[in-house]
Amino acid sequence: MAALKNIKFQFVLNTLFSKKGSVISRLNFSRSKSDDAVSVKSLLLQNHRLGSNVLVKGWVKSLRKQKENTFIHIGDGSGEQIQVVIPSSLCHEDCCFNSGVVVRGKVVQNPKANQPTEVKAENLEVVGRLDLNFVNTFCGVSCRTYNYVRQHIHLRPKTTIYPAILRLSSLITTTLHNTLIQDGSISVSTPILTSNDCEGAGKVFFVRPASEELCREMGNNEKLEESYFNKRVYLTVSSQLHLEALAGGISKVFTMDPTFRSENSRTRRHLAEFRMLEAEIAFCSDLQPILSTIECLVKQSAKSLLESLDDLLKTDFATITYRQALELLLENKSVFKKSPRDGADIGSEHELFLVKHIGENKPFYMRTAEDDHSLVSCVDLLVPGVGELCGRSLRENRHSILKRRLEMQNLAETLNWYLDLRRFGGSPTGGFGMGVERLISYLLKIPNLKDIVPFPRTPHHCPM
Amino acid sequence: MAALKNIKFQFVLNTLFSKKGSVISRLNFSRSKSDDAVSVKSLLLQNHRLGSNVLVKGWVKSLRKQKENTFIHIGDGSGEQIQVVIPSSLCHEDCCFNSGVVVRGKVVQNPKANQPTEVKAENLEVVGRLDLNFVNTFCGVSCRTYNYVRQHIHLRPKTTIYPAILRLSSLITTTLHNTLIQDGSISVSTPILTSNDCEGAGKVFFVRPASEELCREMGNNEKLEESYFNKRVYLTVSSQLHLEALAGGISKVFTMDPTFRSENSRTRRHLAEFRMLEAEIAFCSDLQPILSTIECLVKQSAKSLLESLDDLLKTDFATITYRQALELLLENKSVFKKSPRDGADIGSEHELFLVKHIGENKPFYMRTAEDDHSLVSCVDLLVPGVGELCGRSLRENRHSILKRRLEMQNLAETLNWYLDLRRFGGSPTGGFGMGVERLISYLLKIPNLKDIVPFPRTPHHCPM
Repeated sequence: MAALKNIKFQFVLNTLFSKKGSVISRLNFSRSKSDDAVSVKSLLLQNHRLGSNVLVKGWVKSLRKQKENTFIHIGDGSGEQIQVVIPSSLCHEDCCFNSGVVVRGKVVQNPKANQPTEVKAENLEVVGRLDLNFVNTFCGVSCRTYNYVRQHIHLRPKTTIYPAILRLSSLITTTLHNTLIQDGSISVSTPILTSNDCEGAGKVFFVRPASEELCREMGNNEKLEESYFNKRVYLTVSSQLHLEALAGGISKVFTMDPTFRSENSRTRRHLAEFRMLEAEIAFCSDLQPILSTIECLVKQSAKSLLESLDDLLKTDFATITYRQALELLLENKSVFKKSPRDGADIGSEHELFLVKHIGENKPFYMRTAEDDHSLVSCVDLLVPGVGELCGRSLRENRHSILKRRLEMQNLAETLNWYLDLRRFGGSPTGGFGMGVERLISYLLKIPNLKDIVPFPRTPHHCPM
Repeated sequence: MAALKNIKFQFVLNTLFSKKGSVISRLNFSRSKSDDAVSVKSLLLQNHRLGSNVLVKGWVKSLRKQKENTFIHIGDGSGEQIQVVIPSSLCHEDCCFNSGVVVRGKVVQNPKANQPTEVKAENLEVVGRLDLNFVNTFCGVSCRTYNYVRQHIHLRPKTTIYPAILRLSSLITTTLHNTLIQDGSISVSTPILTSNDCEGAGKVFFVRPASEELCREMGNNEKLEESYFNKRVYLTVSSQLHLEALAGGISKVFTMDPTFRSENSRTRRHLAEFRMLEAEIAFCSDLQPILSTIECLVKQSAKSLLESLDDLLKTDFATITYRQALELLLENKSVFKKSPRDGADIGSEHELFLVKHIGENKPFYMRTAEDDHSLVSCVDLLVPGVGELCGRSLRENRHSILKRRLEMQNLAETLNWYLDLRRFGGSPTGGFGMGVERLISYLLKIPNLKDIVPFPRTPHHCPM
């Protein structure tokens, strides 16, 4: 990592500098207040007494120039705006919509305004100038469509709606994290780089050093792609297998790391890179704890959001078996293009109602059901507008059955380590994976995942 | 994602099933108690009254068979162990060190024991058998060296030390996350896949779909590598530039996503894939807020750990300028192989004391110092045993200066979007990146990063 001149150094090895005490600026444990700027939010919460001097930093969100005074709304990314009143003679002509400004002034009350706290400015400095021609149309009301804004993705955070989406996304991911932590689960990093292709689905990206020189230095000329790791290495499609290894000693683990698919699908519900909350629970021989964990996570997320989501909280989740769902589908078959049949492929057109079942393709790790050996124990959560939000299963913890499956799928050698987990004091385990962006899409009613991820990656699209 | 037979469905669309109310198992908002197992931790906290029936699930951590009774210590990954006493006649011979077991019994008190709460077992089921020959030596006392254990990485969570490391790592990352959230920062996902090579250092991995068929379908035969995204795409080396774009509307953002380097370095302090806490602060024209944020994060992490780390909390961080540090180095030049000189390269041998300075190579984004134009404003945190933990800078927010630098480095075209951020209402910004594993290494005094990351990736090493 870079390191340069005029650097300030931090040494915990205080002893080295004990003689030089005078040159060392000592810091408090709590954050120092050398920067005396206050956030807009804190101003509106009336944390500052009337008449006190404040420093406000933010972007101009509206500006109305009158003969005597200029009225400016300033937002600083905290989701609120404050009105600043400044004598027009002191407002520099560079100050316009979306300029970055630093304002010095006094807190005042304007009882006539909707929002009574204001700042009477004595000084305004423009610290971020801008090219008027573009941003006025971009951030203004005129063409604030998602699609247009997405074409200028690096400036998207300057709109009103996008920071709001990101603030709520941050709230949701924090809630997911802390809910699992409070439940005794451990947050772990699972690898992005892996030599396993978890589901054997082949929709993976592979990875090698960009420098062919380095590849040659580390391996041989013929297999550049295998030089760095001595084998082909892929971007993970799921952390499940790694989580199972960790659950073998820690019982409850989860990760919220990115996951990748090299599919050529261009829908509003697919991304090449997306975030998945994956959890694994040891000593789990029943789907019930998984179901209730998922329900709890979704509802805690909703609870942490606006009261307008109260409706969701009041609705209990419904659970039915596959057979029962099939029955219901058959009763409603008139609404489908293709009618569902027992044992046959239930197409993606039913996704909002049913999950596809492809008996032949069931992943090797799913546990065969106790009561019907043609079935496996798994669970999916489908939600309106989004479809599959969550899916996972009990894992096959019986060594002989898993071994046979891996052999049939030619995976016995690569996944020998996974089989090993069943040889050395395993346990019945189960887990799930939840699409984090899809959860946010569902909770915020934002249909396109590209409007949730800061820098979405899709086929033919990785602009920066 | 996979989806199969015998699936249970979850519909928020309750109306569909209102007639079928009887088949729907309704869940409570709080997690259902269908699984009545209690954690070892909760038992030891005496949350269960004496004589009550409990179900304990975990792994056998020690086992002492006597004529009448067998004494077993069970751990369930929560970091504690409980003693279970069972009549030897009821203890199956499969039950041995590290077996996964489910025990039914009653809570009893044994005032003579160190840990008075015990379980008097009435039934013990072995749910995870094991191959004795390997695990006894692996998990036992005999050869519990980090290096040996690392060779069987998938079984590492079964040792005593490794789950402890992961539990503390989880505590530290949770603390980092929540400290920044409480400070008003927003947690964002930054992309792993990027078409920028942030620091122009060339030490990147590149990525393409593994399926050549898909590549051909999406592009042309000549440039398979550019088919999916219409250009070469790399694994990120830093999220800084993306964070700067987001700070352009949200002021304070951070990410803790993985980062990659395709270096051929095999030290205990380098990984090909590692986690970096990166933060960016808009309207930051002074290094002080960055310094105090970093200090606060490190100290909050330490505070969340054991009291044995009290010493660190009592030590104020020391701050000196580059010139002052150089002076100190020169005063101590006898300890270095190569003596430091003003303006010259300070080699890596000084890493624990000083940061290298390579004026010619300073990244384009660092802000030139106001008082001396040959210098830039940046900050590094070095800690004992680990070296550089943290480094970042104020960003060059002056359009003309940055433009000239990008042109000189031939980056003006690719990074036009980054230059744009200075054209449309930017602000002085600054930020930092902190190696999360290095922080954990420092706080826990575990020298090798491979013993901190669950599945470390290093040259020639990506076993699973």
